[in-house]
Amino acid sequence: MKPYAQMTLEELTTQKNELDRVFSKYKEKDKKLYMTRGIPSEDQLSLCNDMLTCLSTEDYKTASGTDCRNYGGLDGLPEMKKIYADLLDVTPEEVIVLGNSSLALMFDNVSLHVSHGVKNGKPWPAQGKVKFLCPSPGYDRHFTICNYFNIEMIPISVGPDGPDMDTIETKLTSDPMIKGIWCVPKYSNPTGIVYSDETVKRFANLKPAADDFRIYWDNAYAIHDFNEKKEIPNIIRLCEEAKNPDMVYVFSSFSKVSFGGGSVTCIATSKSNCEFLRQRLTARSIGPDKLNQLRHVRFFKDAAGVLAHMEKHAAILYPKFKLVCGMLDEELGKLGIAKWITPAGGYFVNFDSLDGCAKRIVALCAEAGVALTPAGATYPNGIDPQDKNIRIAPSYPPLAELKEAMEIFCNAVKLASIEKMLEKNKSIKMR
Amino acid sequence: MKPYAQMTLEELTTQKNELDRVFSKYKEKDKKLYMTRGIPSEDQLSLCNDMLTCLSTEDYKTASGTDCRNYGGLDGLPEMKKIYADLLDVTPEEVIVLGNSSLALMFDNVSLHVSHGVKNGKPWPAQGKVKFLCPSPGYDRHFTICNYFNIEMIPISVGPDGPDMDTIETKLTSDPMIKGIWCVPKYSNPTGIVYSDETVKRFANLKPAADDFRIYWDNAYAIHDFNEKKEIPNIIRLCEEAKNPDMVYVFSSFSKVSFGGGSVTCIATSKSNCEFLRQRLTARSIGPDKLNQLRHVRFFKDAAGVLAHMEKHAAILYPKFKLVCGMLDEELGKLGIAKWITPAGGYFVNFDSLDGCAKRIVALCAEAGVALTPAGATYPNGIDPQDKNIRIAPSYPPLAELKEAMEIFCNAVKLASIEKMLEKNKSIKMR
Repeated sequence: MKPYAQMTLEELTTQKNELDRVFSKYKEKDKKLYMTRGIPSEDQLSLCNDMLTCLSTEDYKTASGTDCRNYGGLDGLPEMKKIYADLLDVTPEEVIVLGNSSLALMFDNVSLHVSHGVKNGKPWPAQGKVKFLCPSPGYDRHFTICNYFNIEMIPISVGPDGPDMDTIETKLTSDPMIKGIWCVPKYSNPTGIVYSDETVKRFANLKPAADDFRIYWDNAYAIHDFNEKKEIPNIIRLCEEAKNPDMVYVFSSFSKVSFGGGSVTCIATSKSNCEFLRQRLTARSIGPDKLNQLRHVRFFKDAAGVLAHMEKHAAILYPKFKLVCGMLDEELGKLGIAKWITPAGGYFVNFDSLDGCAKRIVALCAEAGVALTPAGATYPNGIDPQDKNIRIAPSYPPLAELKEAMEIFCNAVKLASIEKMLEKNKSIKMR
Repeated sequence: MKPYAQMTLEELTTQKNELDRVFSKYKEKDKKLYMTRGIPSEDQLSLCNDMLTCLSTEDYKTASGTDCRNYGGLDGLPEMKKIYADLLDVTPEEVIVLGNSSLALMFDNVSLHVSHGVKNGKPWPAQGKVKFLCPSPGYDRHFTICNYFNIEMIPISVGPDGPDMDTIETKLTSDPMIKGIWCVPKYSNPTGIVYSDETVKRFANLKPAADDFRIYWDNAYAIHDFNEKKEIPNIIRLCEEAKNPDMVYVFSSFSKVSFGGGSVTCIATSKSNCEFLRQRLTARSIGPDKLNQLRHVRFFKDAAGVLAHMEKHAAILYPKFKLVCGMLDEELGKLGIAKWITPAGGYFVNFDSLDGCAKRIVALCAEAGVALTPAGATYPNGIDPQDKNIRIAPSYPPLAELKEAMEIFCNAVKLASIEKMLEKNKSIKMR
């Protein structure tokens, strides 16, 4: 198969007819295939099933004797802090472990700065229109938080080494109303890229005009490697060295380590920031669910136990990503109508179609029973200016279903591309 | 023993010497007795131990097939909503079930109105200085939330039927900056009183000057009866009847039903309010810990199961309250130096000393190893204008320790009272 751009109008039309025919067959099959979000499969969840029963009528206390069934313990069990600290290469004093949603931690953190400012400084909105830098494509739920708090989002382009640091530096030094930036530094959602050492260093050395600017470092896929372990530099230590010790909040979650519906999550940040966050925690709650933290401690034992467990996740996930990227290579590799990134970890394959085709591809897939993340969702306010980015989330379906879904997807990509090319050709002729 | 007020100076001095002697002996014993907060005892927690193991590698799905291990489910499992709805006599559509802390629900709710207003109206602080009515003595953590959000607290006195409704009605109709009121309608913290039917009705029929005024109905002890079950009228239905359907948020918690360190909690309110709250929940998190909700469903089965379980709690708690109130009667009943309320449920015995003695009593107890809630904590900003209110929390210590603690407490009350009387006598003489 040659690139579509080299095909004659006739060849394209022949192709289209064949693709239409196949598409009709897919529709007849009336499948329901789910690839909208990066959620673990049942196989992955079952890896942790023993956590459901690992406490007992004899085991509900920590090493120091804390009865986890009762009230108390504001910011996490010492044992769970230790595990997170070891995984993130920080000290337990730099870690706060809370409930089952790291998104809630980010939301609450933004809410905190909206109502109380950073470290009890002036609340962000009291200073003017708050802005966040949003490396895009990015995680839709980060953007939803901005929308909820009426924060203006400034898209920043993303390359293979991370966000465009030149633009970030320029904007940050000149605009004191830029108060935050969303980052997924490792296996970014959705691009799958890993920030380079240089990028991380430049982040730590930012000189924002606002002294209450904060980096939201959502390290959601910190230990979610498929094969080879990739390390990114320690942003907390680098910020410290750059005399910016309080500039970064690192978020981490076990939602894709243990259970999406019952995990533990953490914030890692400077001791001084932790102290500030505890002011709010003290007013908000007697403390997080300690029993669930103890379950995690008992099941994983230590950071090494967590990492060993992640290899089991990888053994399930990696074949799915190999299948997806292999099919993309095979089906679309020579057609010149799409680009994608083959990730080394995380939960997504980032896919770029021809300009103006993403919405149509997602719609075609939906018609044939494959649910994808809405096109545009990876951009602030759901607006992908080129309508080309699609987030493929292959983690949930079993391999056989995934193969079917990807066949439908590839067909849809080809079909939408030819439609677009024929449409363009038509409009050229008409001019 | 006759009332202290009828004693001569000499008799009082003799008494004091004897009390001092006993107090020294207590101090020598170097006890550590804990009565600061209303937390369940180990016996009570153990009633739920089977909840620690009630899920299994075969049981983690709801009746409708939801895998509780995975993401999803914004506002609670249907089964858990049903239990709460039945307990609170509302419909499941009026219930949102979330994580382990009802205090966090209240905090987040205030935070919501501070940043986004009520139903996306004008944020409270954008309208002026926000005020809350605070029936006092009351729950210190309610007041902490007000302090955190810079909300002015207006103390409202509390009688045997509930807060002073005349004052509440007068203030509410005249001041549109009063945006909320904290209520613990059943077995109030700390007074132990139950709002009368008339009081609840008057609450539902309030005509606040502010249409974004909300009642924070913290029904923390809704099912925490010792003996006879007391019912209060259904505030949600009454508000509906009074054409005030959205005026009340009811908060309820299983922290003193299952585990303080790992329970589930709920908000019950109008469907329209639930819809508004879900806007925030959607932006904040993928959903609460479903596994822990399922544990509660499996362990309790239904509302009747919960109520049967509460009788086991009562069997442990009631003897402690009988002991405390019995000792107060016996030791202080005839001395005319204190008043207290014998509650029929809940977690506290409300104690009023002579004016100006509460801080001294708490300090004396601390010296002898008995930790009490700080005096004044039951009032806004920690200021009890008469320095007389003490919250006794007898739930945690075993009976034998409780007896020792109450001996020390009664001794401290007598001692502080005589000190105060002698001091007054001295100041009269000097004039």
